[in-house]
Amino acid sequence: MEVELLYDMPRLEEKLLIESLRQRNLEVQLTNVNTTPLLIGEAATEVALVRVVSMQKAIYSAASREAAGTTAINSSTTLMFCGDKILTLSRLKAEGLKVPRSMVVMGAESADAAYNQFTKPFVDKPPIGSWGRLVTLVRDKATWRSVLEHRQMMQSQQLRTHVVQEYIESGGRDIRAIVIGGEVIGAVVRKSVGDEWRTNIALGGKTEPIKVNGEIAELSLRAAKIVGGEFISIDILEDKRNGQLYLNEVNGVPEFKGFMEATGINVADELVKHIVSVVRR
Amino acid sequence: MEVELLYDMPRLEEKLLIESLRQRNLEVQLTNVNTTPLLIGEAATEVALVRVVSMQKAIYSAASREAAGTTAINSSTTLMFCGDKILTLSRLKAEGLKVPRSMVVMGAESADAAYNQFTKPFVDKPPIGSWGRLVTLVRDKATWRSVLEHRQMMQSQQLRTHVVQEYIESGGRDIRAIVIGGEVIGAVVRKSVGDEWRTNIALGGKTEPIKVNGEIAELSLRAAKIVGGEFISIDILEDKRNGQLYLNEVNGVPEFKGFMEATGINVADELVKHIVSVVRR
Amino acid sequence: MEVELLYDMPRLEEKLLIESLRQRNLEVQLTNVNTTPLLIGEAATEVALVRVVSMQKAIYSAASREAAGTTAINSSTTLMFCGDKILTLSRLKAEGLKVPRSMVVMGAESADAAYNQFTKPFVDKPPIGSWGRLVTLVRDKATWRSVLEHRQMMQSQQLRTHVVQEYIESGGRDIRAIVIGGEVIGAVVRKSVGDEWRTNIALGGKTEPIKVNGEIAELSLRAAKIVGGEFISIDILEDKRNGQLYLNEVNGVPEFKGFMEATGINVADELVKHIVSVVRR
Amino acid sequence: MEVELLYDMPRLEEKLLIESLRQRNLEVQLTNVNTTPLLIGEAATEVALVRVVSMQKAIYSAASREAAGTTAINSSTTLMFCGDKILTLSRLKAEGLKVPRSMVVMGAESADAAYNQFTKPFVDKPPIGSWGRLVTLVRDKATWRSVLEHRQMMQSQQLRTHVVQEYIESGGRDIRAIVIGGEVIGAVVRKSVGDEWRTNIALGGKTEPIKVNGEIAELSLRAAKIVGGEFISIDILEDKRNGQLYLNEVNGVPEFKGFMEATGINVADELVKHIVSVVRR
Repeated sequence: MEVELLYDMPRLEEKLLIESLRQRNLEVQLTNVNTTPLLIGEAATEVALVRVVSMQKAIYSAASREAAGTTAINSSTTLMFCGDKILTLSRLKAEGLKVPRSMVVMGAESADAAYNQFTKPFVDKPPIGSWGRLVTLVRDKATWRSVLEHRQMMQSQQLRTHVVQEYIESGGRDIRAIVIGGEVIGAVVRKSVGDEWRTNIALGGKTEPIKVNGEIAELSLRAAKIVGGEFISIDILEDKRNGQLYLNEVNGVPEFKGFMEATGINVADELVKHIVSVVRR
Repeated sequence: MEVELLYDMPRLEEKLLIESLRQRNLEVQLTNVNTTPLLIGEAATEVALVRVVSMQKAIYSAASREAAGTTAINSSTTLMFCGDKILTLSRLKAEGLKVPRSMVVMGAESADAAYNQFTKPFVDKPPIGSWGRLVTLVRDKATWRSVLEHRQMMQSQQLRTHVVQEYIESGGRDIRAIVIGGEVIGAVVRKSVGDEWRTNIALGGKTEPIKVNGEIAELSLRAAKIVGGEFISIDILEDKRNGQLYLNEVNGVPEFKGFMEATGINVADELVKHIVSVVRR
Repeated sequence: MEVELLYDMPRLEEKLLIESLRQRNLEVQLTNVNTTPLLIGEAATEVALVRVVSMQKAIYSAASREAAGTTAINSSTTLMFCGDKILTLSRLKAEGLKVPRSMVVMGAESADAAYNQFTKPFVDKPPIGSWGRLVTLVRDKATWRSVLEHRQMMQSQQLRTHVVQEYIESGGRDIRAIVIGGEVIGAVVRKSVGDEWRTNIALGGKTEPIKVNGEIAELSLRAAKIVGGEFISIDILEDKRNGQLYLNEVNGVPEFKGFMEATGINVADELVKHIVSVVRR
Repeated sequence: MEVELLYDMPRLEEKLLIESLRQRNLEVQLTNVNTTPLLIGEAATEVALVRVVSMQKAIYSAASREAAGTTAINSSTTLMFCGDKILTLSRLKAEGLKVPRSMVVMGAESADAAYNQFTKPFVDKPPIGSWGRLVTLVRDKATWRSVLEHRQMMQSQQLRTHVVQEYIESGGRDIRAIVIGGEVIGAVVRKSVGDEWRTNIALGGKTEPIKVNGEIAELSLRAAKIVGGEFISIDILEDKRNGQLYLNEVNGVPEFKGFMEATGINVADELVKHIVSVVRR
């Protein structure tokens, strides 16, 4: 049995996945999507594990292989839903999940209206991007104008689009749960550090394990099901004033190094076990 | 009964749609998505007709309204599949439809390999974009290198990605059929003009009506079904050497002025009749 | 005698210039640099009046005509010095003029060092650009990080470069003087309005005439001489705490509608009189 | 005596320069302009040797140091003239040097006019850039349109500008001479290799030494003088049909590894000897 692992920038996570795949007697075909052109509709394996860091490349990698009947984990559709915060929020909201109040601003002319409809500070971010990049806490109109002017100069329409979002007072913490094949394998809390309000690990955020209670589990599983995710991480914000939970983001190509270190859970092997079960189906 | 028409740059098509909607006693709520921020999960109408020219804005418009339970025509998922040529080709191919042989090139390092695997000339295009823009017929390595170097400088990963495609000898013609609610309402042939090989109307292409034969009808309906399109146009290439038909592109926010003039078909009213039936369902 | 007027987006200013030129019996050759290719070293007139709004296009227009021996007003070199705030500040400072303390930041790795060396708030701007665009008052590290992250995504190295500048407490005012052919023809004060701290007219700033005192006159003439400007405007900041004047920016293609309305000075005709004297030299 | 060496990406050339400076008892202050913010008007040395690969950063580095009275080699003005092909060609042409017939195209509307005025194939390139990047040999209108469409999508106005240039039949060769302090130290021929018509070393071009004859020497020295260059390389094209020489490009931060290997000339030490003489002046 063979599994293709598609990647662009190999990290520790990919090495662990390769080891786990081999330990469970799956052959691994490695494909660097930067150096290998992908023929649409051609695939040599039954399962394609998409570990491409660039989200757009990940989507294209999955789609190209699915065209040959291969099962991509995650599927291109899941990657699309997770890779764009507007699509994620829209689908979660459509299915009745609680998300932060969020507004889509697609032109400078609608920016003032949006500004006036949100309590300050509010959060502004583009629909695409990782590691908290460009996520800005807008406290006043001067900051808002600076962000607007900068974003209008971007070439990509996605980067020119604003997701304006109510700021959930979560005390510089968010919860990240990982779901594999319909099961929550664990969760951590990420805490922002120093004068940085964002919790992202890439920005210095620290990770601690937490127990997965029923509410977190239910939310995570529902989110995973809504986006059709086989292996995803879910970001949840807890309003520290009243304990209300908000689903915020869903990641279709989860990084799990920090999660693994904090929880001791062998994420790579959990995923591989799931892949084996998929292959056997 | 009320229908929201979301737009950015109103064209003749939108005016005709508004007229048809009103004639059939539907109230029209007009929303300029550049000047109106869209709250995710808020919508005032049962149906949202998405006529936004910018494809990314169209997707976001549909998704925001769907979050409130509104039916978007087309749905955000359909718009995503149609708005990206890699996703379109992958899904059509996955379902067994004939598409031109197509390869995804996501890094300069894989460009030579792609070049060597295609007969010259071949077609190069980015997965996103309209009106034939950036679509290049690559005859030799010098042109190929120029295109590669230019595209590597784009900010958007989508524009940095190449769809390399076999050139179908269609004699400077392609077929465009329009499907509304599971029916092919008609088709035209677009012909390239002068020293321009591309058939796009925006590049001077001319339109003539053709009869919809069984093969074109079947292909169009299958394509529409695969992408879940309520109102889409389908581009088909016919290899003039052997008559073989290839599905090439699918458009989720079709322009129909040229089609209407060539065929005499009242596209706007056909669409509105379909919307009425959707609303009544 | 003939004067070429090169332009891209004709405004009131250009119409007034054409009238004044004709009234003084100069023939006017109009060249839209967007629709006319410029052969390097070809020119039909002795003087080329460069009124191109896009600064880079203005520089290229002047240089192309200078290659034929034509006198460009302003010269390409003057336009280059004025069109880039780092070059302006460097040259003014080299000649001993007082400018706000300014630092060039060309990589994210030097951003923290710059942040720590300036009292907050400080001003951040790219070296190129007009109408106050992207000029940000940085009050805290969160704003600084947001600006850095946004700017790192720009394609242009100029836009990726930061001019970090001490904030001069000028009470929301700056002085704009216009120099033509070695004479200060007048000055205005621009005042910021409402919750916008920038004084730019494009951002709602209001203009009032002021008397040109000796210090303003001297500074303006020295600045004009340093950059070799025949027709330029000079922006001066006055520290309201101690009256200290700072030269801030110099514009090589001055807009003068607001200046004209506030002062009653016929700028266009003053410039044309100077051109006549240049032609006669 | 101390010399500041400003750099961004240290190459062999910079290592050789540091060695030569030390051997001649000059102290070297190394400044990485990516990690060190540059205060305008602050400098610790009498001479600043600018070896920054990014041309725009090189200009800013020189200007910042010149603001303190430091001699930059090359000066910011020289770097500006050399760093932009339109400025280079314009100045050389203004002083009567022979350059390829060149046209500046700044809008899609003037592209057809330019196309019609040049024999095919012609050369198209943006005014900025190195290593031959984006330089395209335009053989037909399809290629021309592809280049135009690609370039219109660039953010930078410089990259959106076209230098359209007659193609000099030089047999895939060009001459590169190096001038230091008013003397031609040597010259090489660069030859394009394989199916690549461009001669750039970065594109596989090969270098061979040639004797500097009187004509090459005179042209090189005049070019160096026109741009005010202390240490520059000059690219000359020879029309193989009639021997006519054309000045094509001038480089203000010359790479010299290939030159050194081909000629055996110790470029680094020649430059350091010149710096010593500058310091002593």
